Amino acid sequence: MMKSPFLGVCYYPEHWPEHRWIEDAQKMVALGLRQVRIGEFSWSRIEPEPGRFEWNWLDRAIETLGDAGLGVMLGTPTATPPKWLIDAYPEILAYDINGCPRKFGSRRHYCFSSEKYADETLRIVEAIAKRYGDNDYVTAWQTDNEYGCHDTVRSYSPAAKLAFQKWLQARYENVNILNKKWGNVFWSQEYHSFDQVDLPNLTVTEPSPSHLLDFYRFSSDQVVKYNRLQTKIIRQYAPNKTIAHNFMGFTFSFDHFAVANDLDIAGWDSYPIGFLDVGPFSAADKERYLRQGHPDIAGFHHDLYRAVGNGRWSVLEQQPGAVNWAPHNPAPLTGMVRLWSHEAVAHGAQNVNYFRWRQAPFAQEQMHAGLERPDFKPSPAYAEAEQTFLDLEKTHRNNNTPKAKVAIIVSYEAQWVFEAQPQGENWNYVAILFEWYAALRRFGLDVDFVSADMPINGYKIVIVPSLPILTQAQIDRFSNSDALILFGPRTGSKTPTLTIPHTLAPGLLQSLLPIKVARVESFPDFHRIDGDFDGTQVAGHSWLDHVESELSPIVSSTDGGLLYCKDNYYYLTTLPNEMFFAALVATLAQKAGVQTTLLPPDIRLRQRGDLIYAFNYGPEPVDLPTNIAPKSESYILGAQTLEPAGVAAWKIE
Amino acid sequence: MMKSPFLGVCYYPEHWPEHRWIEDAQKMVALGLRQVRIGEFSWSRIEPEPGRFEWNWLDRAIETLGDAGLGVMLGTPTATPPKWLIDAYPEILAYDINGCPRKFGSRRHYCFSSEKYADETLRIVEAIAKRYGDNDYVTAWQTDNEYGCHDTVRSYSPAAKLAFQKWLQARYENVNILNKKWGNVFWSQEYHSFDQVDLPNLTVTEPSPSHLLDFYRFSSDQVVKYNRLQTKIIRQYAPNKTIAHNFMGFTFSFDHFAVANDLDIAGWDSYPIGFLDVGPFSAADKERYLRQGHPDIAGFHHDLYRAVGNGRWSVLEQQPGAVNWAPHNPAPLTGMVRLWSHEAVAHGAQNVNYFRWRQAPFAQEQMHAGLERPDFKPSPAYAEAEQTFLDLEKTHRNNNTPKAKVAIIVSYEAQWVFEAQPQGENWNYVAILFEWYAALRRFGLDVDFVSADMPINGYKIVIVPSLPILTQAQIDRFSNSDALILFGPRTGSKTPTLTIPHTLAPGLLQSLLPIKVARVESFPDFHRIDGDFDGTQVAGHSWLDHVESELSPIVSSTDGGLLYCKDNYYYLTTLPNEMFFAALVATLAQKAGVQTTLLPPDIRLRQRGDLIYAFNYGPEPVDLPTNIAPKSESYILGAQTLEPAGVAAWKIE
Amino acid sequence: MMKSPFLGVCYYPEHWPEHRWIEDAQKMVALGLRQVRIGEFSWSRIEPEPGRFEWNWLDRAIETLGDAGLGVMLGTPTATPPKWLIDAYPEILAYDINGCPRKFGSRRHYCFSSEKYADETLRIVEAIAKRYGDNDYVTAWQTDNEYGCHDTVRSYSPAAKLAFQKWLQARYENVNILNKKWGNVFWSQEYHSFDQVDLPNLTVTEPSPSHLLDFYRFSSDQVVKYNRLQTKIIRQYAPNKTIAHNFMGFTFSFDHFAVANDLDIAGWDSYPIGFLDVGPFSAADKERYLRQGHPDIAGFHHDLYRAVGNGRWSVLEQQPGAVNWAPHNPAPLTGMVRLWSHEAVAHGAQNVNYFRWRQAPFAQEQMHAGLERPDFKPSPAYAEAEQTFLDLEKTHRNNNTPKAKVAIIVSYEAQWVFEAQPQGENWNYVAILFEWYAALRRFGLDVDFVSADMPINGYKIVIVPSLPILTQAQIDRFSNSDALILFGPRTGSKTPTLTIPHTLAPGLLQSLLPIKVARVESFPDFHRIDGDFDGTQVAGHSWLDHVESELSPIVSSTDGGLLYCKDNYYYLTTLPNEMFFAALVATLAQKAGVQTTLLPPDIRLRQRGDLIYAFNYGPEPVDLPTNIAPKSESYILGAQTLEPAGVAAWKIE
Repeated sequence: MMKSPFLGVCYYPEHWPEHRWIEDAQKMVALGLRQVRIGEFSWSRIEPEPGRFEWNWLDRAIETLGDAGLGVMLGTPTATPPKWLIDAYPEILAYDINGCPRKFGSRRHYCFSSEKYADETLRIVEAIAKRYGDNDYVTAWQTDNEYGCHDTVRSYSPAAKLAFQKWLQARYENVNILNKKWGNVFWSQEYHSFDQVDLPNLTVTEPSPSHLLDFYRFSSDQVVKYNRLQTKIIRQYAPNKTIAHNFMGFTFSFDHFAVANDLDIAGWDSYPIGFLDVGPFSAADKERYLRQGHPDIAGFHHDLYRAVGNGRWSVLEQQPGAVNWAPHNPAPLTGMVRLWSHEAVAHGAQNVNYFRWRQAPFAQEQMHAGLERPDFKPSPAYAEAEQTFLDLEKTHRNNNTPKAKVAIIVSYEAQWVFEAQPQGENWNYVAILFEWYAALRRFGLDVDFVSADMPINGYKIVIVPSLPILTQAQIDRFSNSDALILFGPRTGSKTPTLTIPHTLAPGLLQSLLPIKVARVESFPDFHRIDGDFDGTQVAGHSWLDHVESELSPIVSSTDGGLLYCKDNYYYLTTLPNEMFFAALVATLAQKAGVQTTLLPPDIRLRQRGDLIYAFNYGPEPVDLPTNIAPKSESYILGAQTLEPAGVAAWKIE
Repeated sequence: MMKSPFLGVCYYPEHWPEHRWIEDAQKMVALGLRQVRIGEFSWSRIEPEPGRFEWNWLDRAIETLGDAGLGVMLGTPTATPPKWLIDAYPEILAYDINGCPRKFGSRRHYCFSSEKYADETLRIVEAIAKRYGDNDYVTAWQTDNEYGCHDTVRSYSPAAKLAFQKWLQARYENVNILNKKWGNVFWSQEYHSFDQVDLPNLTVTEPSPSHLLDFYRFSSDQVVKYNRLQTKIIRQYAPNKTIAHNFMGFTFSFDHFAVANDLDIAGWDSYPIGFLDVGPFSAADKERYLRQGHPDIAGFHHDLYRAVGNGRWSVLEQQPGAVNWAPHNPAPLTGMVRLWSHEAVAHGAQNVNYFRWRQAPFAQEQMHAGLERPDFKPSPAYAEAEQTFLDLEKTHRNNNTPKAKVAIIVSYEAQWVFEAQPQGENWNYVAILFEWYAALRRFGLDVDFVSADMPINGYKIVIVPSLPILTQAQIDRFSNSDALILFGPRTGSKTPTLTIPHTLAPGLLQSLLPIKVARVESFPDFHRIDGDFDGTQVAGHSWLDHVESELSPIVSSTDGGLLYCKDNYYYLTTLPNEMFFAALVATLAQKAGVQTTLLPPDIRLRQRGDLIYAFNYGPEPVDLPTNIAPKSESYILGAQTLEPAGVAAWKIE
Repeated sequence: MMKSPFLGVCYYPEHWPEHRWIEDAQKMVALGLRQVRIGEFSWSRIEPEPGRFEWNWLDRAIETLGDAGLGVMLGTPTATPPKWLIDAYPEILAYDINGCPRKFGSRRHYCFSSEKYADETLRIVEAIAKRYGDNDYVTAWQTDNEYGCHDTVRSYSPAAKLAFQKWLQARYENVNILNKKWGNVFWSQEYHSFDQVDLPNLTVTEPSPSHLLDFYRFSSDQVVKYNRLQTKIIRQYAPNKTIAHNFMGFTFSFDHFAVANDLDIAGWDSYPIGFLDVGPFSAADKERYLRQGHPDIAGFHHDLYRAVGNGRWSVLEQQPGAVNWAPHNPAPLTGMVRLWSHEAVAHGAQNVNYFRWRQAPFAQEQMHAGLERPDFKPSPAYAEAEQTFLDLEKTHRNNNTPKAKVAIIVSYEAQWVFEAQPQGENWNYVAILFEWYAALRRFGLDVDFVSADMPINGYKIVIVPSLPILTQAQIDRFSNSDALILFGPRTGSKTPTLTIPHTLAPGLLQSLLPIKVARVESFPDFHRIDGDFDGTQVAGHSWLDHVESELSPIVSSTDGGLLYCKDNYYYLTTLPNEMFFAALVATLAQKAGVQTTLLPPDIRLRQRGDLIYAFNYGPEPVDLPTNIAPKSESYILGAQTLEPAGVAAWKIE
């Protein structure tokens, strides 16, 4: 197993004439690439007809690539069941929220709850794993492709309905318990049996939030179960090989921690420019970072997937140029592909795979750039990948990502709770997470994400942006921690079945903080909740928890207290504006003895091993401030002046 | 029967442990409440299985509440048919406009045209009415709950199609008459038989407006018929009890007058803050009245439902805090719950029921505030209700709402006409009604609404904001009236089957006003039609009737005449802006000898009995102007300075 | 056959009592009308029951109209199959993109792929053609009505699926060829047989662009085939009569050139004010031209349909007042109906039919103005039509539309390519065409449109706004031309099956221009690509082709070259802003020796025969600039000062 970070590429031998393969492989190696990721959409070529397998082409492709010096990551092709399979078993299809089957003709058209598809998945994965499990060139495996892409986690099919009913039966055992936990006495929603419970779509007005939350949990569990089906077989036939999945950006429809429990590596697919266009960013940011992506998009996900992968993670697809799928598709600023590559390494990536080797001239992704153009010439990213490889010779010995001083608690379930019960339409849990991350990063801090179910030992500051459902185990961890812990609004506001705790919010947290959220308000964007934070004018927006407490608020407003503190615990009742974030970070850091440096807006820092990296996300050159910049002779990469998309790295002095 | 206005509350004994009931009842009475409204969603508890009735819990609940001194308003539970019933007879389900059944899992999932549901309604209502019809504690009944909520009046089910065909047959007798009246020769839309007529959904482009209008009329009639089914049984078993229904705000999808003909009391559910967020209000109003609601929302509906109830009306649900159902859910400004309560009384409400006694910790409405919080502690509204009760001791003797000097003619059918044929997308009949109401109220005027089918005797000014279909009986009433009568644009523009009158608009009105609308225009918002009204710069917008007349317009514009007058009749050709409204009200009032007082923007006045009430909807204190304020010793409530959400009342001097 | 331009009107005798017909006909003739267009929605009156034809009324109507001196244009009634037919054969119905049948109750509810409807079309058209084919009064025929209206070209019905599969089989013969041409190896989309290929709707994410493009081509072909079904029969029974169809504005969902191959005249329906409201125009233009329509809407379509009709074209429906179908419906400024009529003549129309004679008081279009109001009085357009007739006495001798010096290449297929693969959401092919047209017209130039498959001989400047799929025949024509030819971005970027050419874009064009589009970018609206064009500050937006070339760009930007030139060929890499358009037109014209005159913004010029026309689209009077205006005695119509909606015409001096 390679320990140093390395580069790789995604390749589709089935798209190109066989005589190209060896040349491509040699060019990849010459470019410095060490991994090639293949196979994940190739079912119709592996099994062109039911039961007839065509291994020869794949055998030769793997041999050619491996012989050239590349480790092969082999993907299972289950994201694209072929037409003959769908025609034979149309019940495999997922159903949309309107109750319509989602037809063949693109990808991810299967329902996670289809038992027939589980059988077919077993059959195809076993066939592939048997054939290549002990192939030395196949050093890693990928299950399926981008679970959840195109809104595919939640299916409203007959198969999903049956599976949901079974899931509920297993969870509640007795339907009267379900009735009680969900509060089904309300609106006469009581059931006599589990098979009366339908999927929560197409109702006249909103379904019960408990019903929704359990459906979202069920849907997440179906992904976990489906992925485990694959990992079990792969481990059986390829016992010592690494297994990964390529997760996506800003995707919270299933529990990535739970899926990753069955993986060795959490991969993710990094498309910062596309994400900027579709994500919750301001018009000013969309304009300034048009060709770079917001400076925290990549870092946010790197740190998130480092947590998901329990420290082992990779970028399995790295944007190398313009993509095809966003509303608008600008190309990266010159240097950004190299910047993104180094930034991934700086955050601890084991490898970075460019997607894809060569732009395909056909089908849905024909406008998606690759390292090569469709005419076999290098695209601009080619040279940047090459430069990155050369740079890595200087930096790759530094492998450890040190534990950060600050952690953010992240919860997929929290997102489902807020989807099931938004209460204010501008409440966006993922955006809140992102804003906390960005606020900390602006102060030069490295950040770790921590699952709500994991320990928080060793952190000096722990941010809980919001955690609506708390467990006693979590409370115990908070209670045993020396860290400053800040809890955001709506924390502890719900029981596990999405009802209100008997003692009101923040529920179990009341054992640590003597506060009670008597009532809440949500607001349109125009409403500012102005407060004074030790002389700084700050403001909250969109939400307010009205707290009853023996404590006096640290930050007050005419609408109510905005921040409370007892011992090392803080409770924030609203969503902060930029000034409020800055004051919070500065205050916590000072109290925790964590050193901060307010960075220029386009600059981000990150430590790996004994190196500090600096990245310039701006379209203009920036001089590193003197309190950051090392002696000029210390630079391993770059210099004090960071060019647009510039990277610097230096040994910690 | 209680004559004085009194307070009540909505309560769901089935949501709480039985041991709480007596304590709750006693607290209610202590708070000054005299009515408790129960039962309207409890079918699954009353009849948990087909034919098996569970009366004991309800017997005990009624007894407990009644023993404590509360009159019980008992609701029929038909808004929430239980799952076992839907599973047995899925044809009960309503269908949406896309032709999909609206599934079980919330409420109001039944189709008004389902004959099976009519049978089941008869069965359950008879069972309940039999059991409690002569129960002394049950002083009032409510049929179903919020007809029309969640867009449920119009169903596109197979049952609705059959019923619509029968309705058409009864209306037209001969399909050739229908063909002629609808103009079906156009686009070869002629039918040979009534069973060829489909519902007007899913057509390639818009269906015939005559087809739509009749479908909207039919859908309204189905509600009337369904409600009558219930009132008949209740009257049979509970002959001397009051029957009410709780209507909604800004809901015009069925004829409330027709439904109320079978009721004793028109109730409505008052949620001013939620309505502000979803209603047709300006950004400035949404910001200023964030926690109060627009000052005319409550009054508009009070006066409308006073008309609907023929003088007998109540607030059956009064917002007591933040709700759960608007896009954003701020809480009322301190004092608003008391203000709303008094305002309802001032407009003539027989009682005001807070919704609900206690915030439920579960299911869809768990974020909807009550008088109590889920932890059994009082919410802010609790004390306001209590204060209201104490205030009422001083004010409740004044029972009569005097007839206003100004009436607005309101027509549900008008709304359907404009839905069927908008002709300009910013024409909004309900908003036009509301703006007229607000314009009159800004001048300190009390306003009565009058159905288009009711007499207008005794009014000095009658506003007809728009009445597209006129009858001779209406013309006769206008003709015999001494009032100044102002007709808005599009009045008389259509025949009863939504065609253009032979003499063009305003059709029958031409016997009173020598005008002919030669043609019309509709405009985007940016187009202002500037005019001069006796020196005041006014403007119209969105619509213009081009009038041919021997009359000279009183207000002209380069686009055409904006206002015409002959004798006591006025015809307005456009939608007025704020200045135009003010000039119109001032002019009419002066001519009619009606005294007006231009109020500060946040202040509203209302007379009940010999009391004048003043309400401050603003977030700042306001001094009553000296021409309004009585001598300081005259105040029964409040004083000349009205605090935010303040209420004053004084005897007419 | 009449050669001089003449006026006509659309009339629905079936809507009016028979005794009105003769009076109407006489008034038409007195007004100067010479054609009456009838019958196109009258199926339910021609064949009220299956097989029972009612000819008498139509016989009498034609006789009455013809006797009065009117030529009758008779429409086939196939846009409105009657209810009895749909009930007998529901498979006739079209299906929407969600897979739902589009119900009876308006018009155009048939599927072009229904074989049953083809049979029924044959039956009804043959019956009508037999009866009236040799009727002397019936001088012209119209097939169906407004193909494509209400988004009806593409149907997702079972019939369409079958027909699409057959179409594919005929096109590709072998499914493996289809797999290869579409690149179906991508995402395992390979098929084993043509009957596995579904329609490209309801897929999980976007279908293959090749799949979409072929479906769009197929859908267009179905319209062509359907129309030909009708023209064949009509020619059989009415061999010497003119056949037309009334096309629409801004409609590109089928190939109008291909349909028109089977017609004698390309008609179109001109509603400039409605098109302004729904079209891609700026807020400023929507406000300024509220009652006139943008000055280039009518001209754009006149010139387009002159090309479609191979020189023979008409306005078959001319807006005479406010319409009923736009979101807002203002009336034309006084004079606009006359202006539009003359402008059509100036662009070469053979006739102009006002739609409609009289506003119908019933059904869907009751708010659509006519020359008469529903009360049989003239509307404002009546006098304008009359004045136009009188004017035509002075101008009608000038019949030839001279070939323009500038041509724009237009391609319906190009639109489908961009629909199938937009790559940037603000790329709008039709808007790009329109902007080129408007830019040329602002310089006083007459413009011809030319189909991508037609010769370009004789033009001095040829604009190819974008032509993604090039053929060798086109290249040969470009190669043999002396014209200056400007190619816009994305030209030559695709193969016929929507893949990327081996040599990259502009593909075959590389034989004329030594450029290669290495990569592309698309941008949100805010991104400007600033360039310097010989000292003029110009900008591109929304798109950028990055060109590799031995050529130096004529216009550069920091993002890349914006304009390249070799010999007489220009390649533009972006979408120009207004200044860029102006610089391009000025540069090309100067180099080509084409004289230009920058017109005042509201003025348009057009030559017909030896007359120059000038039109004022502004709401204020405009003096013709002295470099345009003739001697004052030369005016045949108007004078140097053009009133609002004014028209001038003078002999070329």
